[in-house]
Amino acid sequence: MEYPTTLIENAVNEISKLPGIGKKSALRVVLKLLKEKPEFTDDLAEALIKLRSETKYCRICHMINDTEDCTCMTPKRDTSVICVVEDTPDIMAIQHTAQYNGLFHVLGGLISPIDGIGPEDLNIQSLIDRIQHADYNVKEIILALSTNMEGDTTAFYLAKKLKPFDLKITTIARGIPIGGELEFADEITLGRSIVKRVNYDLNAD
Amino acid sequence: MEYPTTLIENAVNEISKLPGIGKKSALRVVLKLLKEKPEFTDDLAEALIKLRSETKYCRICHMINDTEDCTCMTPKRDTSVICVVEDTPDIMAIQHTAQYNGLFHVLGGLISPIDGIGPEDLNIQSLIDRIQHADYNVKEIILALSTNMEGDTTAFYLAKKLKPFDLKITTIARGIPIGGELEFADEITLGRSIVKRVNYDLNAD
Repeated sequence: MEYPTTLIENAVNEISKLPGIGKKSALRVVLKLLKEKPEFTDDLAEALIKLRSETKYCRICHMINDTEDCTCMTPKRDTSVICVVEDTPDIMAIQHTAQYNGLFHVLGGLISPIDGIGPEDLNIQSLIDRIQHADYNVKEIILALSTNMEGDTTAFYLAKKLKPFDLKITTIARGIPIGGELEFADEITLGRSIVKRVNYDLNAD
Repeated sequence: MEYPTTLIENAVNEISKLPGIGKKSALRVVLKLLKEKPEFTDDLAEALIKLRSETKYCRICHMINDTEDCTCMTPKRDTSVICVVEDTPDIMAIQHTAQYNGLFHVLGGLISPIDGIGPEDLNIQSLIDRIQHADYNVKEIILALSTNMEGDTTAFYLAKKLKPFDLKITTIARGIPIGGELEFADEITLGRSIVKRVNYDLNAD
C-alpha cells in the first residue's frame, strides 16, 4: 500500500508491529491521531514511555508492580501456598476468580527449546530460594501452567526439581469446562477427564 | 477489570481510546511492550509524536503531506478536474484504482448539524478560490462523497454553491458493485440503479 507521507508510513509500520493490529487498523489509528488534538497523541506516547521505563518487578514474586516491593507478602494472604504461573495475565485471571488467597510466583516464560528458552532463563532459582527460606514456611506449590508442550515440559521440570523439598506439589484441575457440552468437547480433554475421574461429592458447593 | 499497576491501567486506558482497540487488546499491547526491549516502545512513541507534530497539510488541496507544498499541482496531472473528497483515505482509495489523473480537494469532513459541523468548518472557501483562480482553469468538479445523510447534504450544498460558476459538476456513479450479485444487493441501490439506468455501451472496456 502506498501512503501519502513517510511520517504516516513510519507510524503505520510501528503500530502494526503490535499484536492484533494489521496495516489497515494501524492506518485507522494514524488518521484518528491526526484528527484529534496533539495532546491526545502526547498523552498516549507518554503513557507508553512511562509504562516501559517505570514498571518494576517484585524482587520476590517477579510480579509486575509499581515498586520493587509488592504486596505479595501481606499477612492477609495464605503464605504457605505459592501458585506458579507463566506471566502476569495468568495472575489477573486467577485473582479474578476470587477462589485463591495464596501467593504467586511468576516464571516469566516457559521452557521452550525451539525458542532457545531453558530453565536458567526462568525465575526458578528464586522460587527455590523462597521455598528454602525459613520465614516463609511454604507447604504447597500449585503449578498453574498452560496445557501445551512448553507448559507440560516446565511443569515436569519443576516437579522434579522441587521433589527433594518437603512440599505438596499440585496442578490445576483439567477436564470439561463448566457449562461445556460433552459432545463439543475435544477428544483429548474428554478422554483424560474419564481416565482421571473423581469421586462424586454430594457435599460439593 | 483490575490491573496490577496504575502504569498499566493508564496505558490500557490511553490505548483503548484508539479505534478498534478494546481494553483486552490494549492489555495485550501493554504486555507486548513490557516483553520487548525499551527501544521498541521508544520507536513507537517517537513515530506517533513525529506523525502528529510534523505532518503538514497542502495549502491548496489540504491533502496530508510532508511539506506545505504538495505535488497536487504537478503538470503530469489533469489540472482541469478536481475531485472533492471527505478525507485522505478516500484519495488513497481513488489513487489505488489508477483510473483518475486529475486533482483532489480535501474537505476535511462532511456537513453534520448533529455533530455541530457546518459548511464554514470545511475547506469550501479554498475550493472556490481554486475555481476562481485564472491560472488553474478548472472545468469539472467531481463530488466523491459517501452516500449517507452527511455526504448527500454536503454534495447538495456544494452543488448549489458552485452553480454560479461555469463548471461541469459530476458525482461518482452509484449502482450495483461490479461482481455483486443482484439477489444480494440492497433494495435502495438496486431500485436506484434501475431508475438511473444507462445506455448499454457496446464499445465499453
